[in-house]
Amino acid sequence: MQKPAFVSDYMEGAHPAILQRLLETNLEKTAGYGYDEYSEAARKKIREACGAPDADVFFLAGGTQTNAVMIDSILRPYQGVIAVTTGHIAGHEAGAIEYGGHKVLVAEQTDGKVSAESIDRILRGYAEDENHEHMVMPGMVYLSQPTEYGTLYSLAELQAISGVCKEHHIPLYLDGARLAYALACPANDVTLRDLAALCDAFYIGGTKCGALFGEAVVIPRHDYIPHLFTIIKQHGALLAKGRVAGIQFDTLFTDGLYERLGKTAIEAADRIRRALAEKGYREAFPSPTNQIFVALNEKQLAALSERAELAFWEKREDGDTVMRIATSWATTPEDADRLIACL
Amino acid sequence: MQKPAFVSDYMEGAHPAILQRLLETNLEKTAGYGYDEYSEAARKKIREACGAPDADVFFLAGGTQTNAVMIDSILRPYQGVIAVTTGHIAGHEAGAIEYGGHKVLVAEQTDGKVSAESIDRILRGYAEDENHEHMVMPGMVYLSQPTEYGTLYSLAELQAISGVCKEHHIPLYLDGARLAYALACPANDVTLRDLAALCDAFYIGGTKCGALFGEAVVIPRHDYIPHLFTIIKQHGALLAKGRVAGIQFDTLFTDGLYERLGKTAIEAADRIRRALAEKGYREAFPSPTNQIFVALNEKQLAALSERAELAFWEKREDGDTVMRIATSWATTPEDADRLIACL
Amino acid sequence: MQKPAFVSDYMEGAHPAILQRLLETNLEKTAGYGYDEYSEAARKKIREACGAPDADVFFLAGGTQTNAVMIDSILRPYQGVIAVTTGHIAGHEAGAIEYGGHKVLVAEQTDGKVSAESIDRILRGYAEDENHEHMVMPGMVYLSQPTEYGTLYSLAELQAISGVCKEHHIPLYLDGARLAYALACPANDVTLRDLAALCDAFYIGGTKCGALFGEAVVIPRHDYIPHLFTIIKQHGALLAKGRVAGIQFDTLFTDGLYERLGKTAIEAADRIRRALAEKGYREAFPSPTNQIFVALNEKQLAALSERAELAFWEKREDGDTVMRIATSWATTPEDADRLIACL
Amino acid sequence: MQKPAFVSDYMEGAHPAILQRLLETNLEKTAGYGYDEYSEAARKKIREACGAPDADVFFLAGGTQTNAVMIDSILRPYQGVIAVTTGHIAGHEAGAIEYGGHKVLVAEQTDGKVSAESIDRILRGYAEDENHEHMVMPGMVYLSQPTEYGTLYSLAELQAISGVCKEHHIPLYLDGARLAYALACPANDVTLRDLAALCDAFYIGGTKCGALFGEAVVIPRHDYIPHLFTIIKQHGALLAKGRVAGIQFDTLFTDGLYERLGKTAIEAADRIRRALAEKGYREAFPSPTNQIFVALNEKQLAALSERAELAFWEKREDGDTVMRIATSWATTPEDADRLIACL
Repeated sequence: MQKPAFVSDYMEGAHPAILQRLLETNLEKTAGYGYDEYSEAARKKIREACGAPDADVFFLAGGTQTNAVMIDSILRPYQGVIAVTTGHIAGHEAGAIEYGGHKVLVAEQTDGKVSAESIDRILRGYAEDENHEHMVMPGMVYLSQPTEYGTLYSLAELQAISGVCKEHHIPLYLDGARLAYALACPANDVTLRDLAALCDAFYIGGTKCGALFGEAVVIPRHDYIPHLFTIIKQHGALLAKGRVAGIQFDTLFTDGLYERLGKTAIEAADRIRRALAEKGYREAFPSPTNQIFVALNEKQLAALSERAELAFWEKREDGDTVMRIATSWATTPEDADRLIACL
Repeated sequence: MQKPAFVSDYMEGAHPAILQRLLETNLEKTAGYGYDEYSEAARKKIREACGAPDADVFFLAGGTQTNAVMIDSILRPYQGVIAVTTGHIAGHEAGAIEYGGHKVLVAEQTDGKVSAESIDRILRGYAEDENHEHMVMPGMVYLSQPTEYGTLYSLAELQAISGVCKEHHIPLYLDGARLAYALACPANDVTLRDLAALCDAFYIGGTKCGALFGEAVVIPRHDYIPHLFTIIKQHGALLAKGRVAGIQFDTLFTDGLYERLGKTAIEAADRIRRALAEKGYREAFPSPTNQIFVALNEKQLAALSERAELAFWEKREDGDTVMRIATSWATTPEDADRLIACL
Repeated sequence: MQKPAFVSDYMEGAHPAILQRLLETNLEKTAGYGYDEYSEAARKKIREACGAPDADVFFLAGGTQTNAVMIDSILRPYQGVIAVTTGHIAGHEAGAIEYGGHKVLVAEQTDGKVSAESIDRILRGYAEDENHEHMVMPGMVYLSQPTEYGTLYSLAELQAISGVCKEHHIPLYLDGARLAYALACPANDVTLRDLAALCDAFYIGGTKCGALFGEAVVIPRHDYIPHLFTIIKQHGALLAKGRVAGIQFDTLFTDGLYERLGKTAIEAADRIRRALAEKGYREAFPSPTNQIFVALNEKQLAALSERAELAFWEKREDGDTVMRIATSWATTPEDADRLIACL
Repeated sequence: MQKPAFVSDYMEGAHPAILQRLLETNLEKTAGYGYDEYSEAARKKIREACGAPDADVFFLAGGTQTNAVMIDSILRPYQGVIAVTTGHIAGHEAGAIEYGGHKVLVAEQTDGKVSAESIDRILRGYAEDENHEHMVMPGMVYLSQPTEYGTLYSLAELQAISGVCKEHHIPLYLDGARLAYALACPANDVTLRDLAALCDAFYIGGTKCGALFGEAVVIPRHDYIPHLFTIIKQHGALLAKGRVAGIQFDTLFTDGLYERLGKTAIEAADRIRRALAEKGYREAFPSPTNQIFVALNEKQLAALSERAELAFWEKREDGDTVMRIATSWATTPEDADRLIACL
């Protein structure tokens, strides 16, 4: 029998409603490249969910691709993007941002988050440095919600960051690869409408949130990035059968599915968190969403690795190993219990 | 009632066997990034079909992406790729190759094809030019089968080209976006095994040949391109849920489906070709696969455009407009007849 | 004794006045990066010579570098540059433009020149192509004066081209690597003021026109390219000791030296042209400036190669070899006579 | 009267012997692109000075350009370069390395230096990280001698670093923008021969060490970087009049001038250091070469800024401002005394 597997939130296929819809529409003929009616319907529903009637919406295949395309299209070629040292683009995208010619300007993080003050300090530091003409100009801010550490920006924090960005006239972009797990989290107070109001661009993650694949970029102001269609094509990111992404997001944004989808993941994660605490395990850092980071000593690590599949996160200086437990929209209470039984 | 639509071969969903398989496997948990058992099974079947037991096989999302990744990973940064002026990378990929820093070195074409002699002439011309240190070094050859014009390289032609490449020590890469329609064409004498024997890399197209999306890169010699996994990630082309592509190609390469798939498309195209000829239409150039290029005068164009959906191809100097009629694996004889009724 | 050498116009050192000035100023201390008083003086004189009081002026080290920096800073990342097939950037800059991510969109040439009609056709063709979202958008026009073939655009031709560019809202950039030889040519009717009035940017060549090295970029409208200083640095093209270029251009633009400098070259070239004609040699194409292109049969080539040093230009289909004879600001009448004696 | 100026070591023209040589050779005709006899002579002398008879030697115009070309030509496109956080490429080259597509992988520094242990830790960390296929692969190490902080690697330190690089099979590259000031420093025990023995490539700085401009790249093993000529051209870094750099380096390497040149700078710097200490100023960190970093409180800063020209270095957290005093090969004892009188 297979060990309980909590390695990541992209281990399953798609939400059943998505597959059902793909089946129903399979032999219809539609236009390519996102000009089909399903993509258009999905865009309309996303605009409504975001309260952004003029938003441009594009569907791409994956997260790194989306980050690379968006950062490259927002920045001028001589600019860099501010991100926390632990940001996905800073460490785990194999240099995709630098491949586009841009430096990732790292900011300090606390629990995976950057503060408005820290961004302000970087921007002022650049402006006041007498040598700044010889330096990479910060041209945008990259955040993710939830962060790489599963933590959440509060609305107040996001508003402060957005304020600093506006003050310095630089765009704010948010990576929502796991956004469904933020939206479904009781601790969260940031809605899609807030994101559309505060960000110049963000993406709503599909791959990790119920889709076979796909991310929906939302750009609240129409034509904020001219010729983005061509830029997407230039980056090899344009889907010929755009409808496949369109149908998925149309389904995810029908009757609020996307906003409900993460609920089971959060409930399963909370169930596991309680069990961990009861059994004396320590969380490496607190995270309220679908990812749990647990610090294990050597003995715990050996025992647990034998009984369950978790993801290696990092080796700590104190010798402990941090492992990640990720639940998903498909995790059942029974799945959680099987893992708990291994603790 | 909808007009008969023959705009392209990516207007449908997926082959029903693929959707069926996605359904059956949907809630299984698998490893990410192509390390799952379905991707592994698909790789194994593709290696067998190609007679290339050591081949590296990777699955990417789309054609432009695949071309960009492969060309960028095969070339050294100061090299360019030889392609016909009508090659997809030369005109219709929005500069994706140049985005990677490489020049497309154009060769003359006849019916969409380049000859071994022409390639040899370019390579010798470069080598003999006294200023070649100031020029872009040709570093590989790009072909497609079928070509942009739906034509086919014969085995003899491919062998000659491969021979020239070997003589000049430069790799040969083949874009098989519509490869199923070549393989199913009676006029074709080039097999998957031939491609694996003659090319340094090629890709088997899924998006236009029955998949929801996806292309399978085949590199006959193991580790010919070191660290390709990381390069794919760096280009934003790595699928987190690799299994979605894996399952599709596993299905396409089960019981030779891929090699049969194009047959209906070719039969429908031939049926349409005969009708066109009977009714006095002229093909702009002969193409034996699933694409038909018909030259229409103004009156024909107006009449036909009203009754059917075709793709604009180009305006000719004689005033005629070339329109493309594309059939696909999903085109039924009835579909063909509906179009024929419009002629 | 050395053979008469007419391989190129960059075979000598610098105009004596430049070396003299470098000597006089050698031990003064000045600010770096072009912020010194000599660079400022040179900028002022160039603005005056161009009748462009608000122009931004930058000094770079060489021609390919200048083209790469300017094209990359003028284009948006998804755009390409229109140039004739024989343009320097199209064939002899080792892919420097593609290195910056841009495609060179080639236009047909006649005697090395592109016509306004041809540019208009390309721009309209792009705009009208139904697939243009999948193509590289033309974003600027590149010319050179004189051209690679030593020919000249007339003022009327340049005005027509500039008109087409303005109509299509795309910038016009001119490469003046050998501009001194155009300005000193009796057949020329285009002044520096005309260039400043018609181009969005151009450069005044120093390397081939009397300087040790260096090119002066002129951008008539101030801040047309924001942050160009940083872009130059990013491209590795910023001179730490900017004064070395500044002093050279200050000298070249003192008392109209630059506009007089090419006169001896043109006179020497004309003298050689007359001798060639008298002795029955054929020019491959007519060029009124400091470059002569002569078509030689095998016997002529062998004989002449033994007696003089010329530059290989190209092998023609009729079997003849085109060789280039280049005079320079340093060519004396005696030098010309020594070559003539070899004919 | 001008204030004593110690802003940088590129405030003067060239060593008089260089200008003299440029004058003497000015009207000779030579081949372009470094194929002239002076460049060849300079290469020969540099090979001798480095004890590297097979070395490839190239002359480029400036430091950032040289770093960008060398790093881009040594790395594979998916690799990054390890450098200290304070390395020139990490902070003050306006993203030139990222422009080439590469990440700068920062290492901790002490007094501007990285240790062999730290490099080893980074390389092992990468190799052992389970996610390293998703990360930028470290592909080379970048050092500078002297460092940005004017400090020196000892021979033992360089040997240790070179050993770690060899063990991990990654190349070692050294930026010698100010190398003359290291070679002339009594505290230095690293010779040109040592550099040639320990590095895969390094450059001997001219711009800051007596030349009008120019850096000499030394690659001890012949053809270690194939087609570097073309790569240099592609980067816009090829000098058409290569002789101008060749003559300068030929002069600098005649009779050991380069190795003597920095002596006056070091002596002047030591004289200033002693005066600073006597008058109670504090060095921000000890540096034995031609750069002195002095920490000034507000009052000292105001007073000194009025009387002398120094370079702003950084604002410290304790409120002090670090200013840099740079001497050069042209600094006389009288110059030093004039500055000392201002303290």
